[in-house]
Amino acid sequence: MRQQSTIQINVRNVVIGGEKPLVCLPLMGEDREKLFLEARELQALEPDLLEWRIDGYEDVGNIDLVISSLRGLRRIIGDIPLIFTCRIHSEGGFKKISEEKRLELFAAAIASDNIDLVDVELCSGISFIEAVKKDVRVGGVKLILSYHNIIDTPGEAFIYSKLVEGQLTGADIVKLAVMPRSYTDVLTLLSATNRARNERVELPIITMSMGRQGMISRLAGALFGSDITFAAGKKSSASGQIPLEDLRAGLELLFRSGENDRLWSR
Amino acid sequence: MRQQSTIQINVRNVVIGGEKPLVCLPLMGEDREKLFLEARELQALEPDLLEWRIDGYEDVGNIDLVISSLRGLRRIIGDIPLIFTCRIHSEGGFKKISEEKRLELFAAAIASDNIDLVDVELCSGISFIEAVKKDVRVGGVKLILSYHNIIDTPGEAFIYSKLVEGQLTGADIVKLAVMPRSYTDVLTLLSATNRARNERVELPIITMSMGRQGMISRLAGALFGSDITFAAGKKSSASGQIPLEDLRAGLELLFRSGENDRLWSR
Repeated sequence: MRQQSTIQINVRNVVIGGEKPLVCLPLMGEDREKLFLEARELQALEPDLLEWRIDGYEDVGNIDLVISSLRGLRRIIGDIPLIFTCRIHSEGGFKKISEEKRLELFAAAIASDNIDLVDVELCSGISFIEAVKKDVRVGGVKLILSYHNIIDTPGEAFIYSKLVEGQLTGADIVKLAVMPRSYTDVLTLLSATNRARNERVELPIITMSMGRQGMISRLAGALFGSDITFAAGKKSSASGQIPLEDLRAGLELLFRSGENDRLWSR
Repeated sequence: MRQQSTIQINVRNVVIGGEKPLVCLPLMGEDREKLFLEARELQALEPDLLEWRIDGYEDVGNIDLVISSLRGLRRIIGDIPLIFTCRIHSEGGFKKISEEKRLELFAAAIASDNIDLVDVELCSGISFIEAVKKDVRVGGVKLILSYHNIIDTPGEAFIYSKLVEGQLTGADIVKLAVMPRSYTDVLTLLSATNRARNERVELPIITMSMGRQGMISRLAGALFGSDITFAAGKKSSASGQIPLEDLRAGLELLFRSGENDRLWSR
Protein backbone atom coordinates (compact mmCIF):
# COMPACT_ATOMS: atom_id res chain seq x y z
CA MET A 1 0.00 0.00 0.00
CA ARG A 2 2.80 2.45 0.73
CA GLN A 3 5.19 3.76 -1.92
CA GLN A 4 8.20 1.45 -1.89
CA SER A 5 11.59 2.33 -3.31
CA THR A 6 12.60 0.78 -6.63
CA ILE A 7 15.86 -0.50 -5.18
CA GLN A 8 15.88 -2.45 -1.93
CA ILE A 9 18.89 -2.72 0.33
CA ASN A 10 19.44 -5.92 2.29
CA VAL A 11 21.56 -5.76 5.43
CA ARG A 12 21.73 -8.82 7.70
CA ASN A 13 18.46 -10.00 6.16
CA VAL A 14 16.65 -6.76 6.95
CA VAL A 15 15.14 -5.27 3.78
CA ILE A 16 15.33 -1.47 3.63
CA GLY A 17 12.82 -0.03 1.16
CA GLY A 18 10.46 -2.97 1.34
CA GLU A 19 6.76 -3.23 2.08
CA LYS A 20 7.02 -2.12 5.68
CA PRO A 21 8.85 0.95 6.91
CA LEU A 22 11.61 0.17 9.41
CA VAL A 23 12.25 1.62 12.84
CA CYS A 24 15.74 2.61 13.94
CA LEU A 25 16.72 3.45 17.53
CA PRO A 26 19.70 5.68 18.37
CA LEU A 27 22.42 4.57 20.78
CA MET A 28 23.41 7.69 22.69
CA GLY A 29 25.40 6.43 25.69
CA GLU A 30 28.34 8.76 26.41
CA ASP A 31 30.66 6.15 27.85
CA ARG A 32 31.27 2.44 27.52
CA GLU A 33 29.19 1.49 30.55
CA LYS A 34 26.19 3.61 29.55
CA LEU A 35 26.48 2.52 25.93
CA PHE A 36 26.43 -1.18 26.76
CA LEU A 37 23.57 -0.75 29.23
CA GLU A 38 21.59 1.15 26.61
CA ALA A 39 22.43 -1.42 23.94
CA ARG A 40 21.11 -4.22 26.14
CA GLU A 41 17.88 -2.32 26.72
CA LEU A 42 17.38 -1.37 23.09
CA GLN A 43 18.30 -4.80 21.76
CA ALA A 44 15.49 -6.23 23.87
CA LEU A 45 13.03 -3.88 22.14
CA GLU A 46 13.82 -5.59 18.82
CA PRO A 47 14.25 -2.54 16.61
CA ASP A 48 14.81 -3.11 12.89
CA LEU A 49 18.07 -1.15 13.06
CA LEU A 50 20.28 0.61 15.57
CA GLU A 51 22.38 3.73 15.04
CA TRP A 52 25.47 4.46 17.10
CA ARG A 53 25.92 8.20 17.38
CA ILE A 54 29.66 8.18 17.90
CA ASP A 55 29.80 12.01 17.86
CA GLY A 56 28.46 12.00 21.42
CA TYR A 57 30.84 9.31 22.74
CA GLU A 58 33.43 10.46 25.25
CA ASP A 59 36.21 8.28 23.81
CA VAL A 60 35.57 9.39 20.23
CA GLY A 61 39.11 10.79 20.06
CA ASN A 62 40.70 7.39 20.62
CA ILE A 63 40.17 5.07 17.68
CA ASP A 64 41.30 1.96 19.57
CA LEU A 65 38.80 2.57 22.35
CA VAL A 66 36.04 3.25 19.81
CA ILE A 67 36.73 0.00 17.98
CA SER A 68 36.93 -1.93 21.22
CA SER A 69 33.53 -0.47 22.25
CA LEU A 70 32.19 -1.28 18.81
CA ARG A 71 33.18 -4.95 19.18
CA GLY A 72 31.48 -5.06 22.57
CA LEU A 73 28.42 -3.38 21.12
CA ARG A 74 28.16 -5.96 18.35
CA ARG A 75 28.31 -8.80 20.87
CA ILE A 76 25.34 -7.25 22.66
CA ILE A 77 23.16 -6.39 19.68
CA GLY A 78 23.71 -9.67 17.86
CA ASP A 79 22.45 -9.53 14.30
CA ILE A 80 20.69 -6.15 14.38
CA PRO A 81 21.98 -3.97 11.51
CA LEU A 82 24.07 -1.09 12.85
CA ILE A 83 24.43 2.38 11.37
CA PHE A 84 27.68 4.11 12.32
CA THR A 85 27.19 7.87 12.44
CA CYS A 86 29.56 10.66 13.35
CA ARG A 87 27.22 13.61 12.88
CA ILE A 88 29.07 16.76 11.84
CA HIS A 89 28.72 19.59 14.39
CA SER A 90 27.06 22.07 12.04
CA GLU A 91 24.40 19.48 11.20
CA GLY A 92 23.53 18.65 14.78
CA GLY A 93 26.53 16.66 16.02
CA PHE A 94 27.45 16.78 19.72
CA LYS A 95 31.22 17.24 19.57
CA LYS A 96 33.39 18.99 17.02
CA ILE A 97 35.46 16.28 15.35
CA SER A 98 38.06 17.03 12.70
CA GLU A 99 37.72 15.82 9.14
CA GLU A 100 40.82 13.64 9.47
CA LYS A 101 39.53 12.03 12.65
CA ARG A 102 36.13 11.35 11.10
CA LEU A 103 37.72 9.71 8.08
CA GLU A 104 39.91 7.60 10.37
CA LEU A 105 36.86 6.61 12.45
CA PHE A 106 34.90 5.50 9.38
CA ALA A 107 37.83 3.52 8.01
CA ALA A 108 38.48 1.72 11.29
CA ALA A 109 34.79 0.99 11.94
CA ILE A 110 34.32 -0.40 8.44
CA ALA A 111 37.52 -2.46 8.65
CA SER A 112 36.41 -3.92 12.00
CA ASP A 113 33.54 -5.66 10.24
CA ASN A 114 31.05 -4.71 12.94
CA ILE A 115 28.96 -2.09 11.17
CA ASP A 116 26.51 -2.38 8.30
CA LEU A 117 25.91 1.21 7.24
CA VAL A 118 27.73 4.52 7.58
CA ASP A 119 26.07 7.93 7.49
CA VAL A 120 28.10 10.68 5.82
CA GLU A 121 26.86 14.24 5.36
CA LEU A 122 26.70 15.54 1.79
CA CYS A 123 28.33 18.74 3.07
CA SER A 124 31.48 16.74 3.84
CA GLY A 125 32.42 17.36 0.24
CA ILE A 126 33.17 15.10 -2.67
CA SER A 127 36.76 14.12 -1.80
CA PHE A 128 35.74 13.08 1.72
CA ILE A 129 32.78 11.13 0.38
CA GLU A 130 34.93 9.43 -2.28
CA ALA A 131 37.40 8.37 0.41
CA VAL A 132 34.64 6.80 2.51
CA LYS A 133 33.14 5.19 -0.61
CA LYS A 134 36.39 3.37 -1.20
CA ASP A 135 36.36 1.94 2.33
CA VAL A 136 32.69 1.13 2.11
CA ARG A 137 33.11 -0.79 -1.12
CA VAL A 138 35.98 -2.87 0.26
CA GLY A 139 34.17 -3.49 3.55
CA GLY A 140 30.79 -4.40 2.04
CA VAL A 141 29.13 -1.63 4.03
CA LYS A 142 26.23 0.49 2.76
CA LEU A 143 26.53 4.26 2.42
CA ILE A 144 23.91 6.75 3.65
CA LEU A 145 24.45 10.26 2.30
CA SER A 146 22.63 12.80 4.41
CA TYR A 147 21.60 16.43 4.72
CA HIS A 148 20.41 18.06 7.95
CA ASN A 149 19.14 21.56 8.55
CA ILE A 150 18.66 22.09 12.27
CA ILE A 151 17.49 25.71 11.83
CA ASP A 152 14.66 25.69 9.32
CA THR A 153 13.09 24.04 6.30
CA PRO A 154 14.30 24.95 2.80
CA GLY A 155 11.84 25.01 -0.10
CA GLU A 156 10.45 21.87 -1.70
CA ALA A 157 12.71 22.18 -4.77
CA PHE A 158 15.82 22.40 -2.57
CA ILE A 159 14.83 19.35 -0.53
CA TYR A 160 14.00 17.39 -3.66
CA SER A 161 17.33 18.30 -5.23
CA LYS A 162 19.27 17.31 -2.09
CA LEU A 163 17.69 13.85 -2.27
CA VAL A 164 18.56 13.59 -5.95
CA GLU A 165 22.10 14.85 -5.19
CA GLY A 166 22.52 12.01 -2.69
CA GLN A 167 21.58 9.48 -5.36
CA LEU A 168 23.86 11.07 -7.97
CA THR A 169 26.75 11.15 -5.49
CA GLY A 170 26.60 7.39 -5.10
CA ALA A 171 24.58 6.77 -1.95
CA ASP A 172 22.91 3.44 -1.21
CA ILE A 173 20.34 5.34 0.88
CA VAL A 174 19.62 9.08 0.99
CA LYS A 175 18.66 10.81 4.23
CA LEU A 176 17.38 14.31 4.95
CA ALA A 177 16.19 15.95 8.17
CA VAL A 178 14.96 19.53 8.43
CA MET A 179 13.49 21.74 11.14
CA PRO A 180 9.99 23.11 10.57
CA ARG A 181 8.91 26.57 11.67
CA SER A 182 5.29 25.96 10.70
CA TYR A 183 2.98 23.14 9.70
CA THR A 184 3.40 24.36 6.13
CA ASP A 185 7.08 23.37 6.46
CA VAL A 186 6.02 19.88 7.54
CA LEU A 187 3.93 19.54 4.38
CA THR A 188 6.86 20.83 2.32
CA LEU A 189 9.06 18.00 3.63
CA LEU A 190 6.39 15.37 2.99
CA SER A 191 5.67 16.72 -0.52
CA ALA A 192 9.35 16.80 -1.47
CA THR A 193 9.76 13.22 -0.24
CA ASN A 194 6.69 12.13 -2.18
CA ARG A 195 7.97 13.85 -5.32
CA ALA A 196 11.46 12.33 -4.96
CA ARG A 197 9.94 8.88 -4.50
CA ASN A 198 7.64 9.23 -7.51
CA GLU A 199 9.83 11.08 -9.96
CA ARG A 200 13.46 10.42 -9.48
CA VAL A 201 14.93 8.69 -6.45
CA GLU A 202 15.10 4.91 -6.79
CA LEU A 203 17.05 4.34 -3.58
CA PRO A 204 15.57 3.97 -0.12
CA ILE A 205 14.88 7.39 1.36
CA ILE A 206 14.89 8.53 4.99
CA THR A 207 13.33 11.94 5.64
CA MET A 208 11.88 13.68 8.63
CA SER A 209 10.63 17.05 9.75
CA MET A 210 12.09 17.46 13.24
CA GLY A 211 10.75 18.99 16.43
CA ARG A 212 7.29 18.76 17.88
CA GLN A 213 5.54 20.18 14.83
CA GLY A 214 7.28 17.66 12.60
CA MET A 215 6.50 14.65 14.78
CA ILE A 216 3.74 13.52 12.42
CA SER A 217 6.34 13.09 9.63
CA ARG A 218 8.01 10.33 11.64
CA LEU A 219 4.78 8.36 11.40
CA ALA A 220 3.21 9.51 8.12
CA GLY A 221 6.50 9.80 6.22
CA ALA A 222 6.38 6.05 5.67
CA LEU A 223 3.38 6.56 3.37
CA PHE A 224 5.02 9.25 1.29
CA GLY A 225 8.33 7.53 0.59
CA SER A 226 10.42 7.47 3.77
CA ASP A 227 11.72 3.97 4.45
CA ILE A 228 13.19 4.28 7.93
CA THR A 229 11.91 6.27 10.89
CA PHE A 230 14.00 7.07 13.96
CA ALA A 231 12.24 6.60 17.28
CA ALA A 232 13.16 7.36 20.85
CA GLY A 233 14.50 4.30 22.60
CA LYS A 234 16.08 5.16 25.92
CA LYS A 235 17.02 8.64 24.76
CA SER A 236 16.06 10.43 21.58
CA SER A 237 18.78 11.72 19.27
CA ALA A 238 16.65 14.50 17.76
CA SER A 239 13.61 16.45 18.88
CA GLY A 240 10.24 15.09 17.86
CA GLN A 241 11.20 11.42 17.93
CA ILE A 242 8.23 9.33 18.96
CA PRO A 243 8.60 6.77 21.76
CA LEU A 244 9.00 3.35 20.14
CA GLU A 245 5.81 1.86 21.53
CA ASP A 246 3.63 4.73 20.27
CA LEU A 247 5.30 4.70 16.87
CA ARG A 248 4.76 0.97 16.49
CA ALA A 249 1.08 1.35 17.35
CA GLY A 250 0.75 4.13 14.78
CA LEU A 251 2.51 2.18 12.04
CA GLU A 252 0.47 -0.89 12.88
CA LEU A 253 -2.69 1.15 12.35
CA LEU A 254 -1.53 2.63 9.03
CA PHE A 255 -0.25 -0.65 7.62
CA ARG A 256 -2.78 -3.02 9.14
CA SER A 257 -4.17 -5.30 6.44
CA GLY A 258 -7.38 -4.00 4.89
CA GLU A 259 -9.50 -4.55 8.01
CA ASN A 260 -10.64 -0.95 8.18
CA ASP A 261 -11.95 -0.94 4.64
CA ARG A 262 -14.12 -3.94 5.27
CA LEU A 263 -15.74 -2.00 8.10
CA TRP A 264 -17.25 0.33 5.56
CA SER A 265 -20.44 -1.52 4.80
CA ARG A 266 -23.88 -1.63 6.24
CA MET B 1 0.25 23.93 19.10
CA ARG B 2 -2.14 23.09 16.28
CA GLN B 3 -3.61 25.73 13.99
CA GLN B 4 -6.93 26.76 15.54
CA SER B 5 -9.71 28.51 13.67
CA THR B 6 -10.21 32.23 14.29
CA ILE B 7 -13.87 31.71 15.08
CA GLN B 8 -14.92 29.08 17.58
CA ILE B 9 -18.38 27.51 17.61
CA ASN B 10 -19.89 26.49 20.93
CA VAL B 11 -22.58 23.81 20.95
CA ARG B 12 -23.78 22.40 24.27
CA ASN B 13 -20.51 23.59 25.82
CA VAL B 14 -18.39 21.76 23.27
CA VAL B 15 -15.99 24.16 21.54
CA ILE B 16 -15.46 23.44 17.85
CA GLY B 17 -12.26 25.02 16.53
CA GLY B 18 -10.55 25.11 19.91
CA GLU B 19 -7.22 23.83 21.10
CA LYS B 20 -8.06 20.18 20.69
CA PRO B 21 -9.56 18.58 17.61
CA LEU B 22 -12.89 16.86 18.23
CA VAL B 23 -13.99 13.35 17.38
CA CYS B 24 -17.42 12.67 15.88
CA LEU B 25 -18.98 9.23 15.57
CA PRO B 26 -21.64 8.43 12.96
CA LEU B 27 -24.99 6.86 13.89
CA MET B 28 -25.81 4.49 11.08
CA GLY B 29 -28.61 2.26 12.44
CA GLU B 30 -31.19 1.54 9.71
CA ASP B 31 -34.19 1.20 11.98
CA ARG B 32 -35.35 2.50 15.34
CA GLU B 33 -34.19 -0.51 17.28
CA LYS B 34 -30.73 -0.62 15.71
CA LEU B 35 -30.37 3.14 15.98
CA PHE B 36 -31.16 3.22 19.68
CA LEU B 37 -28.91 0.26 20.40
CA GLU B 38 -26.09 1.95 18.49
CA ALA B 39 -26.76 5.27 20.24
CA ARG B 40 -26.44 3.61 23.65
CA GLU B 41 -23.15 2.01 22.63
CA LEU B 42 -21.69 5.17 21.12
CA GLN B 43 -22.88 7.42 23.94
CA ALA B 44 -20.91 5.24 26.35
CA LEU B 45 -17.77 5.91 24.29
CA GLU B 46 -18.10 9.63 25.11
CA PRO B 47 -17.49 11.08 21.64
CA ASP B 48 -17.30 14.88 21.34
CA LEU B 49 -20.11 14.83 18.79
CA LEU B 50 -22.48 12.40 17.11
CA GLU B 51 -23.82 12.54 13.57
CA TRP B 52 -27.13 10.95 12.60
CA ARG B 53 -26.95 9.86 8.99
CA ILE B 54 -30.67 10.04 8.30
CA ASP B 55 -30.15 9.19 4.61
CA GLY B 56 -29.64 5.57 5.60
CA TYR B 57 -32.67 5.37 7.91
CA GLU B 58 -35.53 3.15 6.75
CA ASP B 59 -38.26 5.55 7.94
CA VAL B 60 -36.64 8.58 6.30
CA GLY B 61 -39.77 9.05 4.16
CA ASN B 62 -42.00 9.59 7.18
CA ILE B 63 -41.26 12.87 8.93
CA ASP B 64 -43.29 11.98 12.03
CA LEU B 65 -41.40 8.74 12.54
CA VAL B 66 -38.09 10.52 11.99
CA ILE B 67 -38.90 13.16 14.59
CA SER B 68 -40.14 10.56 17.03
CA SER B 69 -36.88 8.63 16.59
CA LEU B 70 -34.95 11.86 16.97
CA ARG B 71 -36.61 12.56 20.34
CA GLY B 72 -35.77 9.05 21.48
CA LEU B 73 -32.22 9.49 20.24
CA ARG B 74 -31.80 12.70 22.22
CA ARG B 75 -32.99 10.99 25.41
CA ILE B 76 -30.28 8.38 24.92
CA ILE B 77 -27.37 10.64 23.99
CA GLY B 78 -28.04 13.25 26.65
CA ASP B 79 -26.07 16.41 26.10
CA ILE B 80 -23.78 15.23 23.27
CA PRO B 81 -24.00 17.67 20.33
CA LEU B 82 -25.80 16.08 17.39
CA ILE B 83 -25.22 16.73 13.69
CA PHE B 84 -28.25 15.98 11.51
CA THR B 85 -27.14 14.88 8.07
CA CYS B 86 -29.13 13.79 5.05
CA ARG B 87 -26.28 13.12 2.66
CA ILE B 88 -27.27 13.69 -0.95
CA HIS B 89 -27.00 10.53 -3.08
CA SER B 90 -24.45 11.90 -5.55
CA GLU B 91 -22.16 12.84 -2.66
CA GLY B 92 -22.27 9.47 -0.97
CA GLY B 93 -25.79 9.27 0.53
CA PHE B 94 -27.45 5.87 0.92
CA LYS B 95 -30.97 6.59 -0.38
CA LYS B 96 -32.18 8.99 -3.02
CA ILE B 97 -34.28 11.58 -1.22
CA SER B 98 -36.05 14.41 -3.03
CA GLU B 99 -35.14 18.02 -2.49
CA GLU B 100 -38.56 18.77 -1.00
CA LYS B 101 -38.31 15.88 1.43
CA ARG B 102 -34.84 16.94 2.51
CA LEU B 103 -35.97 20.48 3.14
CA GLU B 104 -38.93 19.20 5.14
CA LEU B 105 -36.66 16.92 7.16
CA PHE B 106 -34.29 19.74 8.03
CA ALA B 107 -37.13 22.06 9.02
CA ALA B 108 -38.80 19.47 11.24
CA ALA B 109 -35.55 18.35 12.88
CA ILE B 110 -34.56 21.94 13.63
CA ALA B 111 -38.02 22.80 14.95
CA SER B 112 -37.97 19.75 17.24
CA ASP B 113 -35.10 21.32 19.17
CA ASN B 114 -33.14 18.08 19.33
CA ILE B 115 -30.30 18.78 16.94
CA ASP B 116 -27.36 21.16 17.17
CA LEU B 117 -25.93 21.21 13.68
CA VAL B 118 -27.17 20.43 10.19
CA ASP B 119 -24.98 19.41 7.27
CA VAL B 120 -26.06 20.70 3.87
CA GLU B 121 -24.14 20.08 0.64
CA LEU B 122 -23.00 23.16 -1.27
CA CYS B 123 -24.26 21.45 -4.43
CA SER B 124 -27.82 21.76 -3.05
CA GLY B 125 -27.82 25.22 -4.57
CA ILE B 126 -28.28 28.65 -3.16
CA SER B 127 -32.10 28.71 -2.82
CA PHE B 128 -32.07 25.41 -0.91
CA ILE B 129 -29.28 26.63 1.34
CA GLU B 130 -31.04 29.95 1.97
CA ALA B 131 -34.21 28.09 2.99
CA VAL B 132 -32.27 25.95 5.50
CA LYS B 133 -30.44 29.04 6.75
CA LYS B 134 -33.76 30.64 7.68
CA ASP B 135 -34.75 27.60 9.76
CA VAL B 136 -31.32 27.34 11.28
CA ARG B 137 -31.34 30.96 12.40
CA VAL B 138 -34.74 30.64 14.03
CA GLY B 139 -33.86 27.33 15.69
CA GLY B 140 -30.43 28.36 16.96
CA VAL B 141 -28.81 25.52 15.07
CA LYS B 142 -25.38 25.72 13.41
CA LEU B 143 -24.92 25.20 9.68
CA ILE B 144 -22.25 22.97 8.11
CA LEU B 145 -21.85 23.53 4.37
CA SER B 146 -20.13 20.59 2.75
CA TYR B 147 -18.58 19.24 -0.42
CA HIS B 148 -17.87 15.57 -1.09
CA ASN B 149 -16.17 13.93 -4.02
CA ILE B 150 -16.44 10.16 -3.70
CA ILE B 151 -14.59 9.52 -6.99
CA ASP B 152 -11.34 11.43 -6.83
CA THR B 153 -9.42 14.44 -5.51
CA PRO B 154 -9.67 17.77 -7.33
CA GLY B 155 -6.65 20.10 -7.43
CA GLU B 156 -5.52 22.12 -4.45
CA ALA B 157 -6.95 25.38 -5.84
CA PHE B 158 -10.39 23.78 -6.28
CA ILE B 159 -10.43 22.37 -2.74
CA TYR B 160 -9.29 25.68 -1.31
CA SER B 161 -11.97 27.56 -3.23
CA LYS B 162 -14.70 25.14 -2.09
CA LEU B 163 -13.75 25.85 1.53
CA VAL B 164 -13.82 29.59 0.87
CA GLU B 165 -17.16 29.18 -0.96
CA GLY B 166 -18.61 27.56 2.15
CA GLN B 167 -17.56 30.53 4.25
CA LEU B 168 -18.89 33.05 1.73
CA THR B 169 -22.20 31.17 1.49
CA GLY B 170 -22.78 31.66 5.19
CA ALA B 171 -21.65 28.44 6.85
CA ASP B 172 -20.78 28.22 10.54
CA ILE B 173 -18.46 25.32 9.69
CA VAL B 174 -17.14 24.19 6.32
CA LYS B 175 -16.62 20.53 5.50
CA LEU B 176 -14.95 18.78 2.58
CA ALA B 177 -14.23 15.11 1.91
CA VAL B 178 -12.48 13.79 -1.19
CA MET B 179 -11.28 10.42 -2.45
CA PRO B 180 -7.55 10.03 -3.10
CA ARG B 181 -6.14 7.98 -5.97
CA SER B 182 -2.58 8.41 -4.78
CA TYR B 183 -0.63 9.63 -1.76
CA THR B 184 -0.03 12.82 -3.71
CA ASP B 185 -3.81 13.38 -3.51
CA VAL B 186 -3.65 12.99 0.27
CA LEU B 187 -1.00 15.73 0.43
CA THR B 188 -3.14 17.90 -1.85
CA LEU B 189 -6.04 17.70 0.63
CA LEU B 190 -3.79 18.48 3.59
CA SER B 191 -2.09 21.38 1.77
CA ALA B 192 -5.39 22.92 0.69
CA THR B 193 -6.69 22.66 4.27
CA ASN B 194 -3.51 24.24 5.61
CA ARG B 195 -3.77 27.06 3.08
CA ALA B 196 -7.44 27.70 3.82
CA ARG B 197 -6.69 27.80 7.54
CA ASN B 198 -3.77 30.19 7.12
CA GLU B 199 -4.99 32.47 4.38
CA ARG B 200 -8.70 32.82 4.33
CA VAL B 201 -11.09 30.59 6.25
CA GLU B 202 -11.82 31.84 9.75
CA LEU B 203 -14.50 29.25 10.51
CA PRO B 204 -13.91 25.77 11.86
CA ILE B 205 -12.98 23.42 9.03
CA ILE B 206 -13.58 19.68 8.65
CA THR B 207 -11.64 17.97 5.87
CA MET B 208 -10.59 14.45 5.11
CA SER B 209 -9.06 12.35 2.39
CA MET B 210 -11.16 9.17 2.38
CA GLY B 211 -10.29 5.54 1.83
CA ARG B 212 -7.35 3.61 3.09
CA GLN B 213 -4.75 5.87 1.51
CA GLY B 214 -6.37 8.91 3.09
CA MET B 215 -6.60 7.40 6.57
CA ILE B 216 -3.66 9.44 7.80
CA SER B 217 -5.60 12.67 7.10
CA ARG B 218 -8.13 11.69 9.76
CA LEU B 219 -5.34 11.82 12.30
CA ALA B 220 -2.90 14.40 10.89
CA GLY B 221 -5.59 16.73 9.52
CA ALA B 222 -6.00 18.12 13.03
CA LEU B 223 -2.52 19.67 12.75
CA PHE B 224 -3.18 21.32 9.41
CA GLY B 225 -6.50 22.96 10.19
CA SER B 226 -9.21 20.30 10.41
CA ASP B 227 -11.23 20.72 13.61
CA ILE B 228 -13.34 17.57 13.68
CA THR B 229 -12.43 14.05 12.63
CA PHE B 230 -14.97 11.30 12.00
CA ALA B 231 -14.10 7.93 13.48
CA ALA B 232 -15.62 4.50 13.27
CA GLY B 233 -17.84 3.80 16.25
CA LYS B 234 -19.94 0.71 15.74
CA LYS B 235 -19.98 1.17 11.98
CA SER B 236 -18.03 3.61 9.86
CA SER B 237 -19.90 5.97 7.57
CA ALA B 238 -17.07 6.37 5.08
CA SER B 239 -14.05 4.32 4.10
CA GLY B 240 -10.82 5.00 5.95
CA GLN B 241 -12.40 5.98 9.25
CA ILE B 242 -10.13 4.95 12.10
CA PRO B 243 -11.56 2.97 15.02
CA LEU B 244 -12.19 5.39 17.90
CA GLU B 245 -9.69 3.87 20.29
CA ASP B 246 -6.83 4.00 17.78
CA LEU B 247 -7.69 7.55 16.76
CA ARG B 248 -7.73 8.72 20.36
CA ALA B 249 -4.33 7.14 20.99
CA GLY B 250 -2.95 8.88 17.90
CA LEU B 251 -4.39 12.28 18.84
CA GLU B 252 -3.15 11.85 22.39
CA LEU B 253 0.35 11.33 21.04
CA LEU B 254 0.23 14.34 18.71
CA PHE B 255 -1.27 16.68 21.30
CA ARG B 256 0.40 15.34 24.41
CA SER B 257 1.90 18.23 26.34
CA GLY B 258 5.56 18.88 25.50
CA GLU B 259 6.81 15.67 27.13
CA ASN B 260 8.49 14.43 24.01
CA ASP B 261 10.55 17.59 23.57
CA ARG B 262 12.00 17.26 27.03
CA LEU B 263 13.21 13.80 26.05
CA TRP B 264 15.62 15.42 23.67
CA SER B 265 18.52 15.99 25.99
CA ARG B 266 21.49 14.07 27.16
